[in-house]
Amino acid sequence: MSPTRITKVFITPVAFADPPLLNAVGVHEPFALRSIIEVETTDGVIGLGESYGDAAHLARLHAVAAALIGVDVFSTSRMLDVTAATLGGAVGTDGHGLTGQISSVGTVLRTFAAFEVAALDVQGKLLARPVSDLLGGAVRESVPFSAYLFYKWASHPGGASDRFGAALDPSGIVDQARWMVETFGFGALKLKGGVFVPEEEMAAIFALRDAFPALALRLDPNTAWSVATSIDVARRLEGVLEYLEDPTPGLTGMAAVARETPTPLATNMCVVGFEDVAPAVALGSVSVILSDHHYWGGLRKVSALAAICDTFDLGLSMHSNSHLGISLAAMTHVAASVPNLTYALDTHWPWKDEDVIEDGVLTFRDGAIDVPTSPGLGVELDRDALARLHERYLACGITDRNDTRYMRSIDPSYDGGLPRW
Amino acid sequence: MSPTRITKVFITPVAFADPPLLNAVGVHEPFALRSIIEVETTDGVIGLGESYGDAAHLARLHAVAAALIGVDVFSTSRMLDVTAATLGGAVGTDGHGLTGQISSVGTVLRTFAAFEVAALDVQGKLLARPVSDLLGGAVRESVPFSAYLFYKWASHPGGASDRFGAALDPSGIVDQARWMVETFGFGALKLKGGVFVPEEEMAAIFALRDAFPALALRLDPNTAWSVATSIDVARRLEGVLEYLEDPTPGLTGMAAVARETPTPLATNMCVVGFEDVAPAVALGSVSVILSDHHYWGGLRKVSALAAICDTFDLGLSMHSNSHLGISLAAMTHVAASVPNLTYALDTHWPWKDEDVIEDGVLTFRDGAIDVPTSPGLGVELDRDALARLHERYLACGITDRNDTRYMRSIDPSYDGGLPRW
Repeated sequence: MSPTRITKVFITPVAFADPPLLNAVGVHEPFALRSIIEVETTDGVIGLGESYGDAAHLARLHAVAAALIGVDVFSTSRMLDVTAATLGGAVGTDGHGLTGQISSVGTVLRTFAAFEVAALDVQGKLLARPVSDLLGGAVRESVPFSAYLFYKWASHPGGASDRFGAALDPSGIVDQARWMVETFGFGALKLKGGVFVPEEEMAAIFALRDAFPALALRLDPNTAWSVATSIDVARRLEGVLEYLEDPTPGLTGMAAVARETPTPLATNMCVVGFEDVAPAVALGSVSVILSDHHYWGGLRKVSALAAICDTFDLGLSMHSNSHLGISLAAMTHVAASVPNLTYALDTHWPWKDEDVIEDGVLTFRDGAIDVPTSPGLGVELDRDALARLHERYLACGITDRNDTRYMRSIDPSYDGGLPRW
Repeated sequence: MSPTRITKVFITPVAFADPPLLNAVGVHEPFALRSIIEVETTDGVIGLGESYGDAAHLARLHAVAAALIGVDVFSTSRMLDVTAATLGGAVGTDGHGLTGQISSVGTVLRTFAAFEVAALDVQGKLLARPVSDLLGGAVRESVPFSAYLFYKWASHPGGASDRFGAALDPSGIVDQARWMVETFGFGALKLKGGVFVPEEEMAAIFALRDAFPALALRLDPNTAWSVATSIDVARRLEGVLEYLEDPTPGLTGMAAVARETPTPLATNMCVVGFEDVAPAVALGSVSVILSDHHYWGGLRKVSALAAICDTFDLGLSMHSNSHLGISLAAMTHVAASVPNLTYALDTHWPWKDEDVIEDGVLTFRDGAIDVPTSPGLGVELDRDALARLHERYLACGITDRNDTRYMRSIDPSYDGGLPRW
């Protein structure tokens, strides 16, 4: 048979409105950036990918895209080699300040991931099978997601109040959770913490527990706490949380906390690449790893991570940044195919109003999304929407995400250093 | 799209002539057994698999085959679930006495593996792509194999001398190696040890080193040695072996040896399933794992094992039992797709005269086999040969391999207990 070679790659940066969601290093800017990747092949089939949208990442995507022309979309290993050769040891930053500098390996994997997803979309379309079937087949028909609760202001400074309103105390968080649960049916609630003093955030967790006694709860302070504070909070929330995510920085700090509490510790900050797994296992730093195909290196790498977690008795969940529908489809396919991805996935989905894909495929029901069964990822670009969000990107003036910089533009005294408490 | 469901499964036991190859627990019987699996689907496409041929394993294959009717060949995860449900905790034995009882998980995986390979063969044929492309694409065009040297008699008792002749001392092993290297071009030599006292086998290794100074050498005594003997031999062979395989039994014993020598230790005996990996890592028992899709649970599981080895800085090689061409094709495809499978693979291939596949696809050149590029596994059944080897199975009277029993039929005083020295 003849190879299905990449003939063209289109990379379209887009921006979509994002509410003022607070986190440990600042606040979300008015627009979130993403890149939409289209990989066209000799068979005329186009595959879709979605990735980060900051300028440095876009430059890397463009460089790699040029080098991928002529490569067979079935040789994803070759695509990875080409990506590594093209980037040649370049390092990046995470674009939001929460995880700091990215290693050269990590930079390669997060650049490659967007193309891998597009390649699998092409493969699935050629075979007339959903992407989950390229990963061993779906082991579940729908994939559960978690509500992602945020402290937030009612509006960006100078703007009108958004439809979500403010959430700056326990009752605001409970109200937000109620809306999320009523609208999407979520069975798990994650609170993004690290914003207020731990006592305040614990109060929010207890309020959630009282309001939603049947739902699983998570708290993610994004390393805002010292080891001592983390141990104290973990103990006081024993039996309340399904996991506590990244209370404190580093594998050693997390291990020190883990030794002192039965509350499971999860991470998307101290284990962000395969090179972090062995030290984390040796130290006993975490019991749950949050996968994310965008930075672990694509869907097959998430499958590999899942096998590692299964082998080393680690739980597996999934991290999310602000994203659009192509990513949601990719997340859903890989999650559907992983037997041991048993925690509901994180998603920022409820916080946006618009998308680049055609409506109708990805719909929440009881907090879950049915795994698309049409060929490939199962989603199609809405080209008018893509053009609109690209115009928004050009107009918004944001070229790289920086939550701390934005917060300081509002509050010049804001520190942002971690850990804080 | 509609699923590609399994409509029929044919399982044909076959036997092929096997020389009297000596190992730590006895000697190969005159015939080696295998099972040839054909999986037919609603699309009319037939996929091939190959597995063990002992009676208990055949019974498990038949039970699972019946349960797999109607399952989609793209849902290999579902096929695994069906296998596990059908076998319901059954345990098996390895059929040759070298690794003892197989866990229920291992029994499921070694039954499933044959069907997984056949399912991937179907998938590849439907997509008109080689199986390696279903695993991320070949990262090498040819896959290197190692010579597998055996001490052996000139003939089975009462039989005529075979074409290989006797090899019962260093010069016999060197002659055998020379024939292997001249015929197949191997760049690595593995000696199956555990047959004679360690001094004798070390002498053979030194003779190989002198005769083939450029080739990589391996010694596999199949746990015939105590920890003290293993440490002594490992030290005396430092710098001579690329690895020493399973010198002594158990994760703890291997770890005790590993602590005392820089010679890399490899295993296909103390790490034979995913449940063994974490303890092996914790103890530092081994630095090379020998994969084998037949018992690790298929090609995708070998890919997962490879990712684990890469993550935990373990080397990866590949184990072989006596096998035919379907297995060789499967081994070649997965090895081609694994970036970090850098050791030449074991194979018993040179020790047989016949096969069930059509000639021409799998040919050794410079010790390597070109990765088949035609759809699926790239091999086709020779139905006349299949019928002939099945007749041989029916006529030979062997229904389960037992090297120790056969040795005792020749030498009633043979012990076979391990470790021996």
